[in-house]
Amino acid sequence: MEDEASLARLLGDFSRLQGNKVLVHGGGKSATRMAARLGIETQMVEGRRVTDEAMLDVVTMVYAGMVNKHIVAALQALGVNALGLTGADLNLIRSVKRPAAPIDYGWVGDVEQVDVDVLDNLIEQKVVPVVAPLTHDGKGNLLNTNADTIAGELSKALVRDFAVTLIYCFDKPGVMRNENDPHSIIRLLTREAYYKYREQGVIQGGMIPKLDNAFAALDAGLECVRITQAHTILLPAEGTTILK
Amino acid sequence: MEDEASLARLLGDFSRLQGNKVLVHGGGKSATRMAARLGIETQMVEGRRVTDEAMLDVVTMVYAGMVNKHIVAALQALGVNALGLTGADLNLIRSVKRPAAPIDYGWVGDVEQVDVDVLDNLIEQKVVPVVAPLTHDGKGNLLNTNADTIAGELSKALVRDFAVTLIYCFDKPGVMRNENDPHSIIRLLTREAYYKYREQGVIQGGMIPKLDNAFAALDAGLECVRITQAHTILLPAEGTTILK
Repeated sequence: MEDEASLARLLGDFSRLQGNKVLVHGGGKSATRMAARLGIETQMVEGRRVTDEAMLDVVTMVYAGMVNKHIVAALQALGVNALGLTGADLNLIRSVKRPAAPIDYGWVGDVEQVDVDVLDNLIEQKVVPVVAPLTHDGKGNLLNTNADTIAGELSKALVRDFAVTLIYCFDKPGVMRNENDPHSIIRLLTREAYYKYREQGVIQGGMIPKLDNAFAALDAGLECVRITQAHTILLPAEGTTILK
Repeated sequence: MEDEASLARLLGDFSRLQGNKVLVHGGGKSATRMAARLGIETQMVEGRRVTDEAMLDVVTMVYAGMVNKHIVAALQALGVNALGLTGADLNLIRSVKRPAAPIDYGWVGDVEQVDVDVLDNLIEQKVVPVVAPLTHDGKGNLLNTNADTIAGELSKALVRDFAVTLIYCFDKPGVMRNENDPHSIIRLLTREAYYKYREQGVIQGGMIPKLDNAFAALDAGLECVRITQAHTILLPAEGTTILK
């Protein structure tokens, strides 16, 4: 979603998605670029951003400011009554600072509690929440929190009151047997097949936490999880569909 | 409000203010500092920021991101159910890009419409809106908009349904006869006296738009406008009280 044209297309498609909806966005590439411009080094450990005080300011500016408000203004222009939120707003997502051992990620939060009544209430008023990947600890601190995880946690919470489909937008056509072969996409992925592929090393790296989130969400009662390219969110036959 | 200790004190006082409330914040000094760190020059004309595309990104990051979300997280820790908003969120404040003549301010907006039903609805739910000084044009563009003006416009709109007091927090004890003499504070300012002081050059500079906003708000039906230092918002006898 981090170039202007793809974002515009995605938001156009998103505005045409039927039913109630919630958008969770990231912004990691923009944050890394902004950090570099400010002379702040980006350090990633196991695909996750180490967030010291200076980096927390950067992600707060980029995620909750630049990215979130551009999406909100664009959706309003498309007739979608968007409301930008972090987990601190309306106390939507309370998290706990990740322990400093074995790896000190700094101001990074693990989700503790989602206030699903807040989402219900907004959805009932035809408001579309646009959620930035930041949470808070209830003691005044913002915490950087993975967007895939937030999407999973919000989906799981919404299952209480809605039939929920979770769509992960991705820069590849879906889960692939071979990253370099677009024809190697896995159309349907069951847990059994996932474990097999993972054991064989066919599925690896950043896809593993995404799929772990997906199966956890299915266990919590989601209808369906899809992993697909941003420009195919309206096409249910595209991408990878993940089944329990 | 732009140092940590004053902000914490102000938010503590704000959390103890009785009645329904809305907070409008600025962030100009932080924006100027962040722009400088990014090698972007700040240009002010008649006390107002010229906002080209690069500066719009800076103010969006600083106002809607860093400043707004730190206030929201701090208020949540004080038991205030804060919700950070720009004018784009929930379509709260629609504005129009200021004409490029006589001065081209760039992406700066003049307020056209406040959706007071949005504020009513939030206030009814005991939510405290925390508003960043950004609006939108309904065509997908964010616009930089003066915080004093937003505070005035929201107050005027809220008069439809509430008895409204507007408090401008200021870095001086109030409106002064002599900027360097803290004892020269004007305790009560009527319009007649304001015109006289202005003619004499006693009141000048950035205080003039603030007071013009204040009298316009009183004309629209506000109970009272105060201009006071941040640490005296709970003390109605402090600062300058402006009367119609």
